Amino acid sequence: MAKFEQLSERIRQFNKDREWDQFHTPVNLAKSISIEAGELLECFQWSDTDYNREDVIAELADVANYCVQMSQVLDVNLVDIINDKMDSTEKKYPIDKAKGVSTKYDKL
Amino acid sequence: MAKFEQLSERIRQFNKDREWDQFHTPVNLAKSISIEAGELLECFQWSDTDYNREDVIAELADVANYCVQMSQVLDVNLVDIINDKMDSTEKKYPIDKAKGVSTKYDKL
Amino acid sequence: MAKFEQLSERIRQFNKDREWDQFHTPVNLAKSISIEAGELLECFQWSDTDYNREDVIAELADVANYCVQMSQVLDVNLVDIINDKMDSTEKKYPIDKAKGVSTKYDKL
Amino acid sequence: MAKFEQLSERIRQFNKDREWDQFHTPVNLAKSISIEAGELLECFQWSDTDYNREDVIAELADVANYCVQMSQVLDVNLVDIINDKMDSTEKKYPIDKAKGVSTKYDKL
Repeated sequence: MAKFEQLSERIRQFNKDREWDQFHTPVNLAKSISIEAGELLECFQWSDTDYNREDVIAELADVANYCVQMSQVLDVNLVDIINDKMDSTEKKYPIDKAKGVSTKYDKL
Repeated sequence: MAKFEQLSERIRQFNKDREWDQFHTPVNLAKSISIEAGELLECFQWSDTDYNREDVIAELADVANYCVQMSQVLDVNLVDIINDKMDSTEKKYPIDKAKGVSTKYDKL
Repeated sequence: MAKFEQLSERIRQFNKDREWDQFHTPVNLAKSISIEAGELLECFQWSDTDYNREDVIAELADVANYCVQMSQVLDVNLVDIINDKMDSTEKKYPIDKAKGVSTKYDKL
Repeated sequence: MAKFEQLSERIRQFNKDREWDQFHTPVNLAKSISIEAGELLECFQWSDTDYNREDVIAELADVANYCVQMSQVLDVNLVDIINDKMDSTEKKYPIDKAKGVSTKYDKL
């Protein structure tokens, strides 16, 4: 089994063992992702460059972990849905127009 | 190559083609994760249960995509760091104490 | 002096005494507002109704305090800009169309 | 009536006219504050300094407006609770220790 699938299975078992699925509704996981995103952002609150690398990695892992859980609750494969979204993003940002600029697609 | 590694490579190429790496500092990606997390949460703004499944999936993909990008900028493997964090989370929430309750570890 | 103006002056003096204006750039305050909004949301992470009222009030105060600080850095009056925004919101949501529904204005 | 109280009354009437109080539970307002905070942050997504001032002001007004609404739902005065929180913040950050540094109080 590939690494990502093993991780996904580990997270599933972790929640099952603790009977936590009852708390993991889509809305509660959406809240959790926002909360953890805020903790990740806190690593950069007063400086863009002077951050604690270990803290950043740990907070990033928390956000991504909840993303995996949300994909499980929605019964989709997280890698698949990112690929699907990439299909449309590639069309919204054609290389020749988007190269070197951070402009949003609707203003390109 | 496994699915997750293929996706990661695709995202890397997407940014390289557009010369977007210059914008993808850790702090900008942390902001981006928070911004997309807010858009995901917006799907549930006024109702916990009456949400548009397609919108939720698309927004979740955006959050997770930026998580992959942040792991690339930090030069870590996203699956590995989630596994590392799971190691400590499993210790913070022993099954016998955590079963069936949503209490935070420092109050268990 | 009215209550709001007194508070605003108190916050200004607090920052001046600590020489903190150097940290309070617009972007850092925008990050701070998101971070504190995440802490407020955390009060409701696993339950919509079973929250600690004192915690909620303290976190709400933190978000609002950073809003006051951001208005000071932008050199605008917070009450005035909310009123200005209300002018346009009232037009976007006419009573006869918006009554009793949470639909966003662009779908009304 | 002072400006802030007039604004608060205007917001109350706006919601009453539209029968929107039914949507404005504490958790929904906490979500709304996070969502709007994300939109404010989006003004600074790719640059700390190159932002649209009008957009920033409009988004800040949205965050602050929801803070007023949350204070109404909790039946507290927003200015009072910020003042209460300032009382404790002033003690957590004594001038002689906090001057010129952005260190969090638990590491001062």
